[in-house]
Formats: sequence, structure tokens, C-alpha cells
Amino acid sequence: MSQTPLLDTIDLPQDLRRLDTKQLPQLAAELRAFLLESVGKTGGHFASNLGAVELTVALHYVYHTPEDHLVWDVGHQSYPHKILTGRKNRMDTMRKYGGLAGFPKRGESAYDAFGVGHSSTSIGAALGMAVADKLAGKTSRSVAVIGDGAMTAGQAFEALNCAGDMDIDLLVILNDNEMSISPNVGALPKYLARNVVRDMHGLLSTIKAQSTKVLDKLPGALEIAQKVEHKIKAIAGEAEHAKQSLSLFENFGFHYTGPVDGHDVEQLVHVLKELRGKKGPQILHVITKKGQGYKLAENDPVKYHAVSTLSQEGGKETEKFPPKPAAKPTYTQIFGRWLCDQAAADPRLIAITPAMREGSGLVEYEQKFPDRYFDVGIAEQHAVTFAGGLACEGAKPVVAIYSTFLQRAYDQLIHDVALQNLPVLFAVDRAGIVGADGPTHAGLYDLSFLRCIPNMVVAAPSDENECRLLLSTCYRLDAPSAVRYPRGSGCGTAVSDGLETVPVGKGVVKREGSRTAVFAFGSMVQPALAAAETLNATVADMRFVKPIDEELIVRLAQTHDYLVTAEENAEQGGAGSAVLEVLAKHNICKPVLLLGVTDTVTEHGDPQRLLDDLGLSAAALAERIRNRFGPAE
Amino acid sequence: MSQTPLLDTIDLPQDLRRLDTKQLPQLAAELRAFLLESVGKTGGHFASNLGAVELTVALHYVYHTPEDHLVWDVGHQSYPHKILTGRKNRMDTMRKYGGLAGFPKRGESAYDAFGVGHSSTSIGAALGMAVADKLAGKTSRSVAVIGDGAMTAGQAFEALNCAGDMDIDLLVILNDNEMSISPNVGALPKYLARNVVRDMHGLLSTIKAQSTKVLDKLPGALEIAQKVEHKIKAIAGEAEHAKQSLSLFENFGFHYTGPVDGHDVEQLVHVLKELRGKKGPQILHVITKKGQGYKLAENDPVKYHAVSTLSQEGGKETEKFPPKPAAKPTYTQIFGRWLCDQAAADPRLIAITPAMREGSGLVEYEQKFPDRYFDVGIAEQHAVTFAGGLACEGAKPVVAIYSTFLQRAYDQLIHDVALQNLPVLFAVDRAGIVGADGPTHAGLYDLSFLRCIPNMVVAAPSDENECRLLLSTCYRLDAPSAVRYPRGSGCGTAVSDGLETVPVGKGVVKREGSRTAVFAFGSMVQPALAAAETLNATVADMRFVKPIDEELIVRLAQTHDYLVTAEENAEQGGAGSAVLEVLAKHNICKPVLLLGVTDTVTEHGDPQRLLDDLGLSAAALAERIRNRFGPAE
Repeated sequence: MSQTPLLDTIDLPQDLRRLDTKQLPQLAAELRAFLLESVGKTGGHFASNLGAVELTVALHYVYHTPEDHLVWDVGHQSYPHKILTGRKNRMDTMRKYGGLAGFPKRGESAYDAFGVGHSSTSIGAALGMAVADKLAGKTSRSVAVIGDGAMTAGQAFEALNCAGDMDIDLLVILNDNEMSISPNVGALPKYLARNVVRDMHGLLSTIKAQSTKVLDKLPGALEIAQKVEHKIKAIAGEAEHAKQSLSLFENFGFHYTGPVDGHDVEQLVHVLKELRGKKGPQILHVITKKGQGYKLAENDPVKYHAVSTLSQEGGKETEKFPPKPAAKPTYTQIFGRWLCDQAAADPRLIAITPAMREGSGLVEYEQKFPDRYFDVGIAEQHAVTFAGGLACEGAKPVVAIYSTFLQRAYDQLIHDVALQNLPVLFAVDRAGIVGADGPTHAGLYDLSFLRCIPNMVVAAPSDENECRLLLSTCYRLDAPSAVRYPRGSGCGTAVSDGLETVPVGKGVVKREGSRTAVFAFGSMVQPALAAAETLNATVADMRFVKPIDEELIVRLAQTHDYLVTAEENAEQGGAGSAVLEVLAKHNICKPVLLLGVTDTVTEHGDPQRLLDDLGLSAAALAERIRNRFGPAE
Repeated sequence: MSQTPLLDTIDLPQDLRRLDTKQLPQLAAELRAFLLESVGKTGGHFASNLGAVELTVALHYVYHTPEDHLVWDVGHQSYPHKILTGRKNRMDTMRKYGGLAGFPKRGESAYDAFGVGHSSTSIGAALGMAVADKLAGKTSRSVAVIGDGAMTAGQAFEALNCAGDMDIDLLVILNDNEMSISPNVGALPKYLARNVVRDMHGLLSTIKAQSTKVLDKLPGALEIAQKVEHKIKAIAGEAEHAKQSLSLFENFGFHYTGPVDGHDVEQLVHVLKELRGKKGPQILHVITKKGQGYKLAENDPVKYHAVSTLSQEGGKETEKFPPKPAAKPTYTQIFGRWLCDQAAADPRLIAITPAMREGSGLVEYEQKFPDRYFDVGIAEQHAVTFAGGLACEGAKPVVAIYSTFLQRAYDQLIHDVALQNLPVLFAVDRAGIVGADGPTHAGLYDLSFLRCIPNMVVAAPSDENECRLLLSTCYRLDAPSAVRYPRGSGCGTAVSDGLETVPVGKGVVKREGSRTAVFAFGSMVQPALAAAETLNATVADMRFVKPIDEELIVRLAQTHDYLVTAEENAEQGGAGSAVLEVLAKHNICKPVLLLGVTDTVTEHGDPQRLLDDLGLSAAALAERIRNRFGPAE
């Protein structure tokens, strides 16, 4: 660059605010280049961040952060924000163990007003801040930045509906890049994409055209024609105004501004300065392009939504980009393959995803069975009730959902599926530690929150083939069920091609030992088997958390001195707790060591390292068992 | 009535369909009279049902139920539906033990297409049925009937957004009575109330036609200018008006019809006949009046939303109406009183309700502290995230919510409050068995789904004074907490006026006995004390489920032979399970009897009778302990 570099001089937003508005495009360009380099090195959400560069610069330039509150919805777009708020030099630690979180996090910076990760919380959170500040007599401003994808979730609607009715100064910025993680689904994105209320705009254009044609034919009516043209321009202006006013958001009581080019930083500054002074709930509609400034990401923002790592050489494509596929298939892929096979075998199968086609392994299924594929958008609640309705009419719905996102459809799972005992299969991905995404995405509670619900069958496969077996088994049930499997790949077991089933509620002994028996669940079976080698312990793969294999528990309890449970779930109310309940029921008094995730907020980082920290690696399991029950005989 | 009675001749909708359209007003009148009498005798949701009489008659008249599916949102309006679908003679059993459920219930009738109770599920469920039918080649029609209050929940929006984008024949009837249980909150009801929803396209076509016609007939220059100006002004005015006319629902891709008078049964039949033949997602906007035809209910529909019983003497007011207040204050009232006192002592307190002002005991609080009262509408998700935002800015939010509705904000409780360790107090009402409302409203899972979440403090008061103490205690925490208390009144303990606190995570021994120790939680403390008399058992009021009093558990376990836990929650992962975890942790091997709600869908009916059935009455507790551990020494 020919100019003096600016980004080097910026540590905090106060430095940024010393710049002239005219310097901001240069800063944005440098920030984008820095971002390409830092995300390229560390991996992370790519396209969203490139799209939010100018908006971030403009927001920190105009708003008095951190006294003013910026709430980034989901947070996939918060890297430029982190760079400008004192964390530039730590960007290479992004999503790594001990490093910066991939999402805004209150504990990390005063500039991270609200911890995020899940979609569509920003409006409600910013509204809360605005209300609290107003009641406390503070003049701080609150801003929510939300993507058009996140707008499809009901919670965003609830917050809009609530805020629009209040006398509160709040700015909601709709960052409209016309796609969420998967291309947007539903009527709202179409509405936004239209950008104009087409009916009205088109119609008034026609009026204008037709009127002019008529006037052309009038002899010596030039003056009139001019007058009419003038008037018609005024109408067109009205129409232009109306097209904005007709916005969905005004129906909710928001004052609407936009659409504004989200990559024109000077215009953004101008508009935001005006908005910062305005009273009442405001919405600013900004049009951005995911991956702006990076050709590859622009061309395929779905693939590059999150990159593991990329090599960035002057913005040029390299061989390392995109990342290589894993050698072993992931559980997600195992599920995707099973789904296709099961759907081929049973025309009643219908698959549903809340905007996670790629993440949940549904790409091939969608291609093969487009009529039986439903991406409902970021709308977990609806996904589950919709499945309930399908099941009422004899369909066999499979809801593919991450453990952490199933939390958002908990009431629907209970009220619309389980209480009615409807045969909906939940394919619960990302159960357990998730690694780089951190605590907001950890799937550590599902065993606890699912097994207390009547009628539910809950299974946890210990390897890839077990995953397929348990999916086939649960699919055949005439009851609600969940198969929960971890992120990433397993141990690489060969996977059957068939659709065989296993007995419901029965575990299998995987290793016969003595003295100590380990009741292992799902992902903990393999580490437990490894640990058992040094302890000569018996290990059971319990397969089902509910119904749990009472007979097996009783038998092993009677033939062993010490009992251990192992699970990748909160210890509170989890699978180990289910074993304790069985022992109590059968009046068996034996020492039991519960191994699961203790009552803590887990961090982000390499999953194996996290499991080691949590005492759930093979070595840690062995050590903890030895510490409690002594060395093997 | 002078005419021959009609209702007596109607058992099923097929009988109804034999009538002439002209006879329907008479049938509706008879149905309303019958309803007044039956609800008057049994109690139940009153105003909503009176408002839905004509709509119900028209729907069953036009639609081929049960092959066509009617999904009633929430179900408070489903009594006329039950009367017309074979259950007329059982209406006197409504909400009673063994009788008809207060909501549609699949197990009860083929005409009850979907079990409901919680709000805003109808559109998604009906959509699921429509999709499944279409894929199966069936020609059945699906209809969702949803109130304007239920439209404020995000889930309804998610379903609209999804359905509007699909090529599916679905009818959504917006039953707009301009209030939900509490008067509606938010921008949407205002929007609906404006009542200016029109077909924009038609309106502007008219404008276009008129303007062209005028311009075609121009007689002379000046006249032209004047006329054109005049017309253009009119167009501008129309444009201005039209901007208000764009229906919210058309934005979502629905074809809109309405508003229609919901008490004109003949007009409804006419409109529904047309709509039944239409393709694509349709919305019919019907204006009804809650309590139509019953003066008292019309005048105060909030009070008469649900009546316990009423006496109906020719529709006239009587002394028995409304029901007498309970002699002892309810837990709801204890909470309401505490809230006012705590708010007076601490200006940071802000109370939030998702449309449950009366049910949650907030009427007095709202009057005293209107600035610190937020009814966010039926929007549990938003209620909790909003509270999180408030807490970020130093406010002390109290979310008053029923246990069963907290299920709908589970992810928000985890992601927006608990993971960030924000001091939000959840006042969890209706925890445990709820009685007449039945399984959809039972609060039987909260102890399990709350105690697995990090940072949460969970308390369960054993009487009214304990409720106040625990509310004061949890309110003072700098962490998220929940105080869960049952529906109705307790044992009538005198309640302190102060705001004293108790030690967090500590229980108290209420009765010293020998041999058997009962760890009792919340509502089970009193029955456990009664049971202990016959067993000479020790009873501890544990007060907290999390953190649980490990020291007390260890001490009592060491000094007793038999241990018992008692809770009004699912046994799976509940408070008893927490006791088992402590015993396992401390390597204590003692026989433990877990007493809670076994893994079952509870029924509706008298709470005491239900508790007896579940083995949780004092007598049942004593018997179960004796059966397991033998008679007292």
C-alpha cells in the first residue's frame, strides 16, 4: 500500500475515532487483509467476518464502545470487532486452547457486551441492556447486529415484537447477506431479497409509464406534460418512500432506514451518526456480501462459512484451501449415509434440518430425496413440532439437530412429541465436547434433559457401526427416540451396509475383567476399554441410556466389587446417575465412581486436550479409577 | 326456544352436516347455552370457548373431520369442538379425574388431531400433517386455529415463515379477539388492531384504472392540469394509505382473507367453503369476542378466562360467580407479595412475565412498579434473554414463569444466562403436579433439566415462609437461580414480613428419628413429616437441590440404616438422583429408596388424588417406605 499503514496504530476503538472519516476505507482494506491472514492461519468463520469489516469499523467509529453496547448475533462476524478492540495481537490464538474464543465472550473483553454462539439472541439482549440503562439513568446506546438468517428464528421475532412496542432507544442492524449458513429458507428471506415491495413499485412504474404515453398524444400539452411529469416524479418519490415504509419492521413499530451499502464505510458512518441521535426503536437494513474481498469465499460462502485453516497468499487460491477431508468418516457422514439408505428402504422417512444441511450431513440426502427433505431455517422449535405433525399422519420424521440446538426445541420435544408418544427420531449430532466452538456449542446436557422425559428412548453409540445400528433400531420404534453421537470421527470401525437392529435397552459386555466393572456410554466406551487394559476391568457398552439395561447392571454389580460409569455428559442427572438409580432400585449397595463432565462451563480448544483436562481421556479414566479403588489386583 | 332443538340431534359432525346452513345460527345458540351450563358446572376456560362457538360449527360443517385435521392452538377454545365430536354427554367430566381433558388430546378422540396445551404449536403441527398427507397422496385438508395472543410467540412466526414458502394447501385461521390471557403485548397486536389489512394489489389496480381513464378523456389543457393534479393527490393519498395495507401475512407468502365476523356462522361457512378449495397457504382473519354471549365474561374476560365453577341461571349473574378466594394464600400470592417487598427495598429489581400477569401473581406489582414491570407477551425465549441483557447492565431481573413454560426457554436459560453466570432469578411456579390442566402443564422435569446446568442454584421451598426465605436468598446471589414452588396453597404457615435469607446449599433437619432418614424436597417435606410419624424417621428439608447439602447427606447417611428421598419431580435425574450422586462421591453404600414421579405421563384431575396414585401422598410415602425397609422398630 502507498499510504502509511493505519491498522498498526489502532489498538482500541478510541484510536480509531481519532481518524478522519476519509481514512476509514483504507483502514477497512487493511483490516480485511489482516483478517484474511489471521483467519487463514487459525481457521474459523470466514465469509461472515469479511462481510462485516466496514460495518464494524463504522460502528466503533460512531458508537462510544464499550459504554455503548454492541451485541453481535451468533458472533460469526465478530473477528473484525475483536481486532479493533485490543485483541489484534492475539488473533493467532483464535479458537485454540487458552486463546481467544471464536465468539464474543463477556469474560474476554469489556467490548463483548453479550456472550453469543446460538442464533437470534441479540435483539432481546440489547433490548435488556437498553432498558436497564434507561432505568438507571444512563445514556449508553445499545445496538444489535443480526443477519438475515438469524431473523428466521422465532426468538428474533419475539424480541422485535416486544421492542417495537416500547419507548426505548435501540438500534437493530439487519446485516442482510441473503444467506445464513445454508442458503436461507422461508418466506422472510424472500421478502428481504425482494428489497422493494415489488407489487407496489411495479404498479406505480406502470402508472407512470401509461400516464406519460397518454400525455404524449395530447396536441400542445408540453407544459402540462412537464407538470404531470413533475407530479409523477413526486409520486415515484412517494412510492420510493412507501417501499421503505412498507417494511416488515415498521409493522413491528420500528423506524426503518435502508437499504444501505454495507461496504461503503463512509456512508455507514454518516447513517449511523444520524441514527445514534434518534429516539425509539430503529432498524437499519444493511446489504453486505459474505466473503467480501475474497474471491473464493465470495464464490462459495457455504463451503467457506467456517474453514479449518487456509493458506492466504496475496488472496490467491492455493492447494491447501479448502481443508482436506478427514481420513476416517465422521459420525455426521455415517448418519448421512444411513439416512439415504433408510430413506431408500422406507418411503415414509422424512428428514428435517433447522438450517444445518452441511453440518448435519444432509447434502447427499437432499439431492436424492428432495421431496422428503425439509430445511425449515433457523427454527428449531418449528422443526420439532412440524415433525410431530408429520408423525401424526404416519410419516417417519428424522430431525437432524445438534445437541446444543436441541435445547431450543426442548418444550416441543416434550409437549408435541414425547407426551403424545409420536415416533420422531432425533439424530443428535455434536453431543459431548465440541472443541473450537467452545461452551456455547458443547452438547453436555442432552442425556440429563432427555432421560427425564417419559416415552423417550435415548441411545449413545460407541463407534461408527454402532451409530448405524442404533439409528436403524431407533428408527423402527413406534416411540420418540434420540441417538446422540459426537463431533468428528470415531475409531474407524467398518460400517455395515445393512439396516440391522439391536435389542432396545440392552447393553453388551465388551471386555470381561474382574473386580471393577465400567458401565460406559457412547464415546466413552473406547477410552474405557483402553483404561480397562491396565486395570483388568470389565467394560460394558451400555448402548442405551434409556431404557437402561437393568439386568446387565445388576449382574455386573453382583459380580464385581467396584463400579464405574463413564459418559461425555454432565454428571448431574446423566447416564451414571441412571445407573445409580437402578442400583438403588435393586437395593444394591456397592461403591460407584461417576465419571462425566463435572459441574463446570467447559472451554474451547482441541477436544482431546479438553477431555484430558476433564479427566475423560483413556489415561485419565484409568488414573481416576485407580485413585479411587486402588491398583488392579 | 320456539324451534325444534337441534343440538340434541347432533352427536358427530356428520349429523351437523345434514343441517341446512340457515339452521346453523340456531345450533350455535343452543351450543352456546349448553356450553354455559356445562362449563358453569365443571369449571374450565370460559371466555375463549364462548368466542369460538360459530367458528367451530362452521369448521365442522365445511371440513370433513376427522379426515380433515383441525388443530386448535392451546386448546382453551376446544369445548364446542368436543361437544360436536361425540363428547357432549361427558362434558360434565371435563378436567376431572378420569374425565375429558381440558385440551384436545389425541388419545381421547380421532377428532383431536393434535394434543395441545402450550401456545403457538398449531401452525407447525398442521403444516406437518398437510405435508405428510400430500406426500402420501391423501387429499385431506389441514387447518390451524390460532388466537392473536399465540401469534406473539416465536414458534408461530417460525411456522408461518416456513409454510409461506411451501407449495402446500394449509389454512391458518387467526382468531383475533384482541387479547390473549392477559391483554396482548407487543407490536403485532397493535398491528392487527389497526384492522387495515387489505388486498393491496386490488386497491392499486383500482387506482391505476381510474387514473388512466381520467387521462384518456382530457378535454382541455388547464382542466387537464387541474384534474390530473387532483387525481395525483388522490393517488398519493391512496399510496400513503396502501402502505398501511400490506398485510403482515402476505409478507410471509400467505394469501390473506378477512377480516370476517367470527360470530356470523353463515358468512363463515360461505368463506370456509371457498377457502377449502383454494391452493397454497391461506390465512383467514376472523374477529371474535371472547365470552361472546355471556355478559359477565364479556365484561371481564381476564378474570373469567378460566373459572373454577360458575352457576348459570339463565345467563344471569349469581353470588357464586366468581369463585371464592382460597382461605390460605397460594404460593403465587406469596411470591407476588415478596416481589413487591423486594422491589421496594431494591430499585434494581425488574420483573418479567411472558403473558402470565395474573397466573404468576404480578397484578399488585405491576400497579406499584409499572416502570419495572415487563410483560413481553407469550414469548418465553425472549423473556429470558431479555433478562440476561438486563442483568448485564446491573439490573436484578426476576423472571416469573411456570415450570412447564420454562421448558420453552431452556436454551436461553443455558446460553444467555447460566453460561454467563448472570444473576437472573427464575420464580418457577406450578412446579410438580398441576391438577386439572393435566400432563401438558405438569411441572415435573425442572429439577432434572435445571440441576445439570453449570452455575445454577436450584431451591425448592417446603412451605410458604420457606418460599419467601428462599426467594430472598436466591435474589441476593450473584448467579442464576431458580426457586420452584407448587401450584395452589401450602400448609398455611405464617409468613415473615422481612427479607431474611438462609445459607445457600444448606438443609435443615425437621424431625429427628432413627433408622430411616428421609431427604425431602419442596412440597414433599410436609407429607414426609407426616409419614415419618408412623415410622419414627428422621426428615430433612433439603431446601436446595443445587448446591445440595453434602455434609447433611453424609451425616444422616452415617447415622441411619435406610435412606429415602422424596420429591415432586421425575425420578430420572431429579433431586433423589442428586442424593445418590453425593453418596457415590463419598463412597457411602447404603440402601436408598427414591420416591418421585416415575417415568410416566401423568393424567389430569384432583392433585391430591393424582399424588396418591403416584405414591406421593403422606400415606403412600409411609407405605412405600415400610414395604421397602420394613416396619419401624
